[in-house]
Amino acid sequence: MDGAENLSKRQLQALQTREKLLNAGRTVFLENGFQKATMTQINKLAHTGYGTAYVYFKNKDELFTELIETIMQKMYDVAGLPFTPKTKEEAFTQIKKQTRLFMELSLEERQVMKIIKEAIGVSPIVAEKWSQIRARFISGITKDIEYVQKAGLARDDFHANLIAKGWFYMNEQLMWELVLGDIKEDVEAVSDHLTRLYTGGLYK
Amino acid sequence: MDGAENLSKRQLQALQTREKLLNAGRTVFLENGFQKATMTQINKLAHTGYGTAYVYFKNKDELFTELIETIMQKMYDVAGLPFTPKTKEEAFTQIKKQTRLFMELSLEERQVMKIIKEAIGVSPIVAEKWSQIRARFISGITKDIEYVQKAGLARDDFHANLIAKGWFYMNEQLMWELVLGDIKEDVEAVSDHLTRLYTGGLYK
Repeated sequence: MDGAENLSKRQLQALQTREKLLNAGRTVFLENGFQKATMTQINKLAHTGYGTAYVYFKNKDELFTELIETIMQKMYDVAGLPFTPKTKEEAFTQIKKQTRLFMELSLEERQVMKIIKEAIGVSPIVAEKWSQIRARFISGITKDIEYVQKAGLARDDFHANLIAKGWFYMNEQLMWELVLGDIKEDVEAVSDHLTRLYTGGLYK
Repeated sequence: MDGAENLSKRQLQALQTREKLLNAGRTVFLENGFQKATMTQINKLAHTGYGTAYVYFKNKDELFTELIETIMQKMYDVAGLPFTPKTKEEAFTQIKKQTRLFMELSLEERQVMKIIKEAIGVSPIVAEKWSQIRARFISGITKDIEYVQKAGLARDDFHANLIAKGWFYMNEQLMWELVLGDIKEDVEAVSDHLTRLYTGGLYK
């Protein structure tokens, strides 16, 4: 733990308790799902005193958003991938790569993503976190579309932002299907099909 | 009321009570949203005896699905629109029309659709109803794609079902944005853009 040597004993204990609660939280959420998980279960599993979880986290929603911080950061990284294609073929390759990464990342964290999906429906805090991810992707894709429109690669009779939304939503919903196991096709087939449909419609 | 003259007095009263509860339910759901609505509120507003709502409906989820039956039926009608285009242009016109109808219907019932959106996240019964709508649209679109592939109008290197999903999800999510007022563009712009992107990618 970086800088831990500069912390007082009490601060160090606080960090350790927090860590214990997060680890217990991960287990409880994975076992029970979001709605059925309780702070009491988390306290119990962490062997911290009654009510201790509430000292560190306002509620289970906040503990959960803390737990998914790493995945969210990885999502932001994928959303922010550079995109400066010189040809339609280069654009296809880069877009398909981004789509693949988005789906692969979601599948790597499949169990957690299932709980995120559940939590989006019932927790305003988690829903807000996910809508930030959506906004970041859509704004990134909008810029990408404007770039290829200016470069003369893509049709310029499209509002970039509207097309960006359509494209992201296709990806998002198919990603959920992959995560929930509702689809027989694999990431390669899904990302290839979506990218071909999208670039076929958008590019000249 | 068709056939009401053949009902006994008791059956007629039961029908009237049921109707009262549904009307009260509509008001309570529209005022409080899905999660905050209770059967007690509905009973109270309907001036039916304590607990009467539970005689007619298992829970608020069932009362709500009864309330949205008409919209759901209209959705099915849109999903089942005939599609036998002879040219790419005819296909464009028919697809855009279907997309417009889907979005216009949702906007006509905007207040109820907002509650459906909320309920999908928290009620397994309502979520299941909506997933049936999704399945109907996706199966209809899959057949439409296979039709134009056979007719030689569309590229045949696409799995129809996968493309159908991508296309429906784009429409569904933009429809929710229109319903929730999260978008500045109107139905015409949205349906035109999505249809152009989609047909541009799918058709030869």
